[in-house]
Amino acid sequence: MQVPVRIVLVETTHPGNIGASARAMKTMGLSDLALVAPRTFPSDEATARASGAADLLERARVHETLDDAIADCAFVVGTSARSRGVEWPCADPREAAARIWDAIDAGNRAAIVFGREQSGLTNEALARCMLHVQIPTDPAFSSLNLAMAVQVLCYELRMTGLSRADRPDAARPLAEPAPGRPRLATSEELEHFHAHLERILIESGFIHEAHPRQLKLKLRRIFQRAGLDKNEIDILRGVLTSLDPTRRAPRRRSGE
Amino acid sequence: MQVPVRIVLVETTHPGNIGASARAMKTMGLSDLALVAPRTFPSDEATARASGAADLLERARVHETLDDAIADCAFVVGTSARSRGVEWPCADPREAAARIWDAIDAGNRAAIVFGREQSGLTNEALARCMLHVQIPTDPAFSSLNLAMAVQVLCYELRMTGLSRADRPDAARPLAEPAPGRPRLATSEELEHFHAHLERILIESGFIHEAHPRQLKLKLRRIFQRAGLDKNEIDILRGVLTSLDPTRRAPRRRSGE
Repeated sequence: MQVPVRIVLVETTHPGNIGASARAMKTMGLSDLALVAPRTFPSDEATARASGAADLLERARVHETLDDAIADCAFVVGTSARSRGVEWPCADPREAAARIWDAIDAGNRAAIVFGREQSGLTNEALARCMLHVQIPTDPAFSSLNLAMAVQVLCYELRMTGLSRADRPDAARPLAEPAPGRPRLATSEELEHFHAHLERILIESGFIHEAHPRQLKLKLRRIFQRAGLDKNEIDILRGVLTSLDPTRRAPRRRSGE
Repeated sequence: MQVPVRIVLVETTHPGNIGASARAMKTMGLSDLALVAPRTFPSDEATARASGAADLLERARVHETLDDAIADCAFVVGTSARSRGVEWPCADPREAAARIWDAIDAGNRAAIVFGREQSGLTNEALARCMLHVQIPTDPAFSSLNLAMAVQVLCYELRMTGLSRADRPDAARPLAEPAPGRPRLATSEELEHFHAHLERILIESGFIHEAHPRQLKLKLRRIFQRAGLDKNEIDILRGVLTSLDPTRRAPRRRSGE
């Protein structure tokens, strides 16, 4: 059984971890590896640690930004070691695997994003995600190796996939949405929406230039959590366009 | 939450895997590491890969045989990559974790045994176990790293332990059996029983000296699977003693 989930490693420091992650993926039937600004890649150490999974490294795409790596994905899960200032929907690996397969079954592309070895994902990267996943490590020693975290998530994806493998819709190709359900918006579409929203709200004065960070994050959380589909994004962008203060005054007013 | 399960690594070839396994254990709240005839230990490489878990390496016990490492354990699970000639009770990691916690909750010591990197556990070692566990790797690429396998099993133990943590008997000390249930036999007690049984059956002529291997394995499977408690072992050994052909002829006959 193949597990059609992209693994995205962001700014990985040690090439050995890239290789070990590729091996971990392949043992669980994953093959789509994306690297964002790795410190050293390609590398002999990565290839050595990949063992029989060097083909995943050869096919891995290297991106400059996380946005590029997840642009075509509609369901993006970010790994997070600690709780952050702004609450985000958060799941354990088993729940996350179920949510990811739900998204796949509905015809969407999914990705799990892993941050740097020492520091994890930045708040900015985590805000790109629809869901955060926390592996329930011992609070007294939560120093989980990067590739080990990849192994645990891929294992859960495989376990869930196997348990669903006999379902009637399991064989549906990824690109074809489930009947009656519009496909989720991709990360790229969501980012365009967020940029649009932010621009409008700065122009309207709602977001002040001084300390907009928390406010933007909270807004973002609402829409990331909502699981917007493409149709809803189109509607929301229509709303934004209609509310844009830089456009001519609204029709109702001009008719007054 | 501490997970009171011993991890036993048999004849590990690469010391880095011992260190990475210690780290994997500690992230999930395990601390009891036993090594059977490791090729290189202690080792700087093991300590380096252990990261903050070097304390587990310092406390690890090194044994010459698997029997020594599991002598006091009543529920022993063996990791197995492929199916063997003789069928043995086999579970996936989730089921195995549930069975292990059942044994712990009943006051028993439990262990998971991992074999050599290249070849896994021998049939002889697997026959020491009550249950085999298979991680459901992709059949096309089942080359799971040893420490990754340790991580997956420890993760499942922690997940199951957390989900049971609010149960009333969760805080019961390991050494105290559940009320009304006698403790399971330890591996040492089981091995004495198997040795006793084998000796009796060779003497009786039931096991022929020529090709006894499959037969002994099948007998062993029956009793390993049964989850014998100490009382049952005592009864069975009484049965064996009473049937021993090298003892005087049975009383009934002598009374004829």
